[in-house]
Amino acid sequence: MNPGGINGRGTVYLVGAGPGAPDLLTLRAAELLKRADIVFHDALVHPETLALAVNAEKVAVGKRCGRHSTAQRFINKRLVDAARIHRVVVRLKGGDPLLFGRAQEEIDALQAAGIPCEIVPGITAALAVAAELKVPLTQRGVARNVVLTTPRVGQDERGSDWAAGIHAGNTAVVYMGAGMAAAVAKELRARGVPADTPVAVVENASLPSRSDRWCTVGTLAETVAAAGPVAGPALIVIGEVLRRAQQCATFTPAGAQNFHEAAVQAGR
Amino acid sequence: MNPGGINGRGTVYLVGAGPGAPDLLTLRAAELLKRADIVFHDALVHPETLALAVNAEKVAVGKRCGRHSTAQRFINKRLVDAARIHRVVVRLKGGDPLLFGRAQEEIDALQAAGIPCEIVPGITAALAVAAELKVPLTQRGVARNVVLTTPRVGQDERGSDWAAGIHAGNTAVVYMGAGMAAAVAKELRARGVPADTPVAVVENASLPSRSDRWCTVGTLAETVAAAGPVAGPALIVIGEVLRRAQQCATFTPAGAQNFHEAAVQAGR
Repeated sequence: MNPGGINGRGTVYLVGAGPGAPDLLTLRAAELLKRADIVFHDALVHPETLALAVNAEKVAVGKRCGRHSTAQRFINKRLVDAARIHRVVVRLKGGDPLLFGRAQEEIDALQAAGIPCEIVPGITAALAVAAELKVPLTQRGVARNVVLTTPRVGQDERGSDWAAGIHAGNTAVVYMGAGMAAAVAKELRARGVPADTPVAVVENASLPSRSDRWCTVGTLAETVAAAGPVAGPALIVIGEVLRRAQQCATFTPAGAQNFHEAAVQAGR
Repeated sequence: MNPGGINGRGTVYLVGAGPGAPDLLTLRAAELLKRADIVFHDALVHPETLALAVNAEKVAVGKRCGRHSTAQRFINKRLVDAARIHRVVVRLKGGDPLLFGRAQEEIDALQAAGIPCEIVPGITAALAVAAELKVPLTQRGVARNVVLTTPRVGQDERGSDWAAGIHAGNTAVVYMGAGMAAAVAKELRARGVPADTPVAVVENASLPSRSDRWCTVGTLAETVAAAGPVAGPALIVIGEVLRRAQQCATFTPAGAQNFHEAAVQAGR
C-alpha cells in the first residue's frame, strides 16, 4: 500500500475506458492504469484494459438498471475513502466519463471531501460506431450537426425532453436506448423525423462480438423486438448520413451475412 | 520503401490524432503510426505524435480557410497514389476523423480507387474541453443531451441550419466558430437560448497553451472581440451545465489569473 499524496491524500482520476476494444484506450489512461494503486471499474471494462493496472487492487462497481442511486452513493464513498490511503485512485468508466456517466455526482463527492480530481477523456461509443460503419456523423449537404442523447432517466427526473434537438436534418446517436426502441421511434416521429430515415442499431461496438441491425425509424421497434433482447451495450444511430452505408450493408454479401446473423439471433 | 499490401495495394488508415496533447492519442493510433510507411497529417498535429511514426515519410497537408476544395482533391489523390506503393498509409487528422473532418471525400476517393480504408476514432475536442473544465456535458436535471456543430461552411453550401437542435435545455459545443462569434451569438439568441446562459471559449484544449474565456451568450461577441483574434483552434461551449464551473473560475484566484491572462492577451 502506497502512502497518500501531498497532504496525505491521493488524487482520483476519472478515466474513460473507451467503447470496448482495449486498444481504443488513450496513452494517458494506459499510463495512469500502470501507476494506479486501486481501480474502481464499470462492469463492462475489457479484461485486457484492467490488466494494464499491474499493481492495483481492482474493484468492480458496475451498475445495472434499477439500483442506481444507492450504488452511486456507495461508489462516491469508496472513492473518497480510497484517496485517503492511496496515491493514485482510478475510477475507470466505459466510454467517456463526462457523457451519460453520472460523473457529476462523483466529482461533487470528491470536491466536498477536498480530494483532488482529474478527468481523462475517452473515445465515446458514437465515434467508435461511426468509425466501424465508416460513416461521418456530419456530412456536407446531409447533416450539419449531431445530437448525442439518452432516453434513460433516473427515478427523480422526467424523461420527456431527451429528444429535444433531434430533427430531420441532423444525426442523432441514442445511448442506452435499445431496450426502449418503440418509445424512441415514437419520439423521433413526433420530432418530425421521417419514417424512412435510416437507422443502425449497433451492439458491442468495437468488439469482435459487434452486431449491426439496419432498419428505419418506421421499422426500428419491430426490428429490435424481432432480434430479441439486446445483450450488450447498444447505440441507435439515426440519420440520412447512414443511407449509403445502409445500402451497401443490405445489398452486398456482407450485408446478407449480417441479416442472416440477425435472423439467427432472433431465433435464439 | 515497403511493397504494397495484398493485391499490390496498401491500406489507408484515417486516424484521429485527438485534441492536441500527444498522450490523448489512442493505443491503436500509436501502433499504426509505428507501422506507418507514410503519414499525411494536418497542420496542427503535435510533433511528439508525429515522432511516433519512426519509419514514415511525413507529409503536411494542413488546410486553412479559403482554399479547401482544391486542397481536398489534392489530398485525395495523394492518398490513392500512396496506397499503390506503400503498405500502411496513415491520414492523421486532428480530433476525430468523422466529426467535421471532411472524411467522406477521402473515403469516397479511396473506395472509387478500390483501396481498403480503415478508420481509427480520436478524442474529439469537446470531450477534452469537458474533461479540463471538469464539466459533464450532460447533467441530470440540467441538460439531457449535447449538440456538436460548426457554423463553418464550404462555398457550395448554405450555413443556415448549423444551429438547428440547439435550444435552452441542452448543451452545445461549437467547433471552428470563434472567428464568427457575433454570428454564433445571434443565432443562439434566435434559437431561444437566454442571454445569461454561460459560455466558455476554450482555445488550444489539452495543451499547455490552453486559455479559457468565460462569458455568456449575451457577452460572447464582445468577449471574443476584446481578446483579439483567436490564434489556435477554439471551441465554444454553451449551456447551463457550465454555470457552477463558471462561478468557480470567476471568483477564485485561479479564475482571477485566467481573467488576467485574457486581459494580457487582449493587449497583445
